Amino acid sequence: MRATVIHGERDIRLEEVADPVISSGVDAVVRVVAACVCGSDLWPYRGVTETEQAHRIGHEFVGVVEAVGDRVEKVAVGDFVIAPFYVCDGTCANCLNGVSTSCLTGGWWGADDREGGFADGGQGERVRVPLADGTLFVVPGPVDDALVPGLLTLSDVMGTGHHAAVSAGVGPGDSVVVVGDGAVGLCAVIAAKRLGATTIIAMSRHADRQELARRFGATHIVAERGDEGVEAVQALTGGIGADRVLECVGTKESMDQAIRSARPGGMVGYVGVPNGGPELPVRALFGRNVGVNGGVAPVRGYIAELLPDVLSGAIEPGAVFDLELPLAEVAEAYAAMDERRAVKVLLRP
Amino acid sequence: MRATVIHGERDIRLEEVADPVISSGVDAVVRVVAACVCGSDLWPYRGVTETEQAHRIGHEFVGVVEAVGDRVEKVAVGDFVIAPFYVCDGTCANCLNGVSTSCLTGGWWGADDREGGFADGGQGERVRVPLADGTLFVVPGPVDDALVPGLLTLSDVMGTGHHAAVSAGVGPGDSVVVVGDGAVGLCAVIAAKRLGATTIIAMSRHADRQELARRFGATHIVAERGDEGVEAVQALTGGIGADRVLECVGTKESMDQAIRSARPGGMVGYVGVPNGGPELPVRALFGRNVGVNGGVAPVRGYIAELLPDVLSGAIEPGAVFDLELPLAEVAEAYAAMDERRAVKVLLRP
Repeated sequence: MRATVIHGERDIRLEEVADPVISSGVDAVVRVVAACVCGSDLWPYRGVTETEQAHRIGHEFVGVVEAVGDRVEKVAVGDFVIAPFYVCDGTCANCLNGVSTSCLTGGWWGADDREGGFADGGQGERVRVPLADGTLFVVPGPVDDALVPGLLTLSDVMGTGHHAAVSAGVGPGDSVVVVGDGAVGLCAVIAAKRLGATTIIAMSRHADRQELARRFGATHIVAERGDEGVEAVQALTGGIGADRVLECVGTKESMDQAIRSARPGGMVGYVGVPNGGPELPVRALFGRNVGVNGGVAPVRGYIAELLPDVLSGAIEPGAVFDLELPLAEVAEAYAAMDERRAVKVLLRP
Repeated sequence: MRATVIHGERDIRLEEVADPVISSGVDAVVRVVAACVCGSDLWPYRGVTETEQAHRIGHEFVGVVEAVGDRVEKVAVGDFVIAPFYVCDGTCANCLNGVSTSCLTGGWWGADDREGGFADGGQGERVRVPLADGTLFVVPGPVDDALVPGLLTLSDVMGTGHHAAVSAGVGPGDSVVVVGDGAVGLCAVIAAKRLGATTIIAMSRHADRQELARRFGATHIVAERGDEGVEAVQALTGGIGADRVLECVGTKESMDQAIRSARPGGMVGYVGVPNGGPELPVRALFGRNVGVNGGVAPVRGYIAELLPDVLSGAIEPGAVFDLELPLAEVAEAYAAMDERRAVKVLLRP
């Protein structure tokens, strides 16, 4: 079969690899119906993080189960499933605490073997899924093809935007700032509206993304950054800043923007993978009682809550996909996102 | 009258100063019944923060109102009052949001004039209280003298320990680690128990403080620090770490201990004044979904909730005072705390 392998900076190849096989009684094999490229895939693509050894890549996919191990109980051949961007057992102490990204037996897709992860990536024709019962979420069938983009967002970006909102404690009547207008930031706008925020300020400088943010529920757009951005937010929030800020980028500048946009006693929910390890300025946080909460989003646990709204059309996170390509053009998918020609690219094997 | 003035490193003097007078219609003058020395007073005392200009010091006191301005409505001559460690109006947007430490018109006791604060400190015979209606909390009289230590803790340490617990989200059944065995840490133990925590691990190396922590509700003591301290906490929390961690010191080492003691998805509530600005390691927080919340504690807003438990004896935070001295010996009070001969010193004018 064919699957995507990253060899180094801007070197993405679709290669012939061995077909996946059930190697443990708790495995499943899934035929991929749709996959996509994540903003975090761009770090190794751009060489920001080094690719020491070629490895499979991709961690967001939906598909149909083709085979299961003899100890798999909750997933059956023919099921349409959503795979979160990581593997988890669903039964350990951390999973039970709602933090399945810290599963004691789970791991990551497409990691090279030295990292102790799982060698299969999600940008391929088929994937071996370890710990299938804990990892996969079965969507009641039949599944309309038009729903595939929305379902695919539950593997990462919609759940991640939701995690930012949950981590920040967004509730009815809150004022919320969303820093970042990528797919996660746009999904965070959806999440903030869904949880009852009444003022939703999207920080964005791109007309197409501003439009999508408004469609998703943003009540205001702030294009300014830095001091001017902070002032614009304060002007919209009674002069004190926003109750909740959702940081969906992961740079030092974006975190700084987020912290300064929060009111005293406010909370920053952050889900942008920290790039370059920006440290948090504790004195600035302390003096104003601004909290920081979040991290790598345990999206597996959010699917049950979000799925009904995707199926009903109450939320439309699938609209973040503004380009669809065949898997054979995966290299172009990376390039389009890298060059900001696309917000997020959906791949069909 | 006499009041305490800090002139520089280890130079604390009780001096003759002008009697306070009502200078605004919203002022009150309070005769101090009891005051105390705060751990944060030791930073300038030790020279860790520089005293550029001699100024009044002390920010925790209780007393009796002797005079009020003509626009004061909620406080009357003869009232027994608790003063929080700051001044606030109780009516601005931040006060209404529960963050009275960020009051838009308030400020700090004993700051020198260049800092825009209020010149009176709390370690004196009398204090001019600006914004008396917002700042002072009236205790229904008559007040038994035996209750004075407990009431005095509501001006800072008990409310601050409570803020650590509230910021960390302590609730029924939680496992809680308290980092720091000073007065605030010990009050955090009280707060954790009061909010329903069932496992309360106090990190302490001093026998007398361990005993007090147990009396206040600690179920376990961990004397180890660093890696050994983390391992000891994990052994008591199912191998994953504590649900909530209350950081009550403010050093880089204590914050590191706190973050590493939290389980994935856990929350650190921190109230230790950050000394030297330890930055927070964002990648370590992100990977494990450990949040950090807290800051300078808005204790004025907590008095109404905590006071009934102090009056009934349900909690006994006044036990943190292990030395009582006349105000004339204020320099010895600082020395006793600096040299760790006392946990906290109560001063009587």
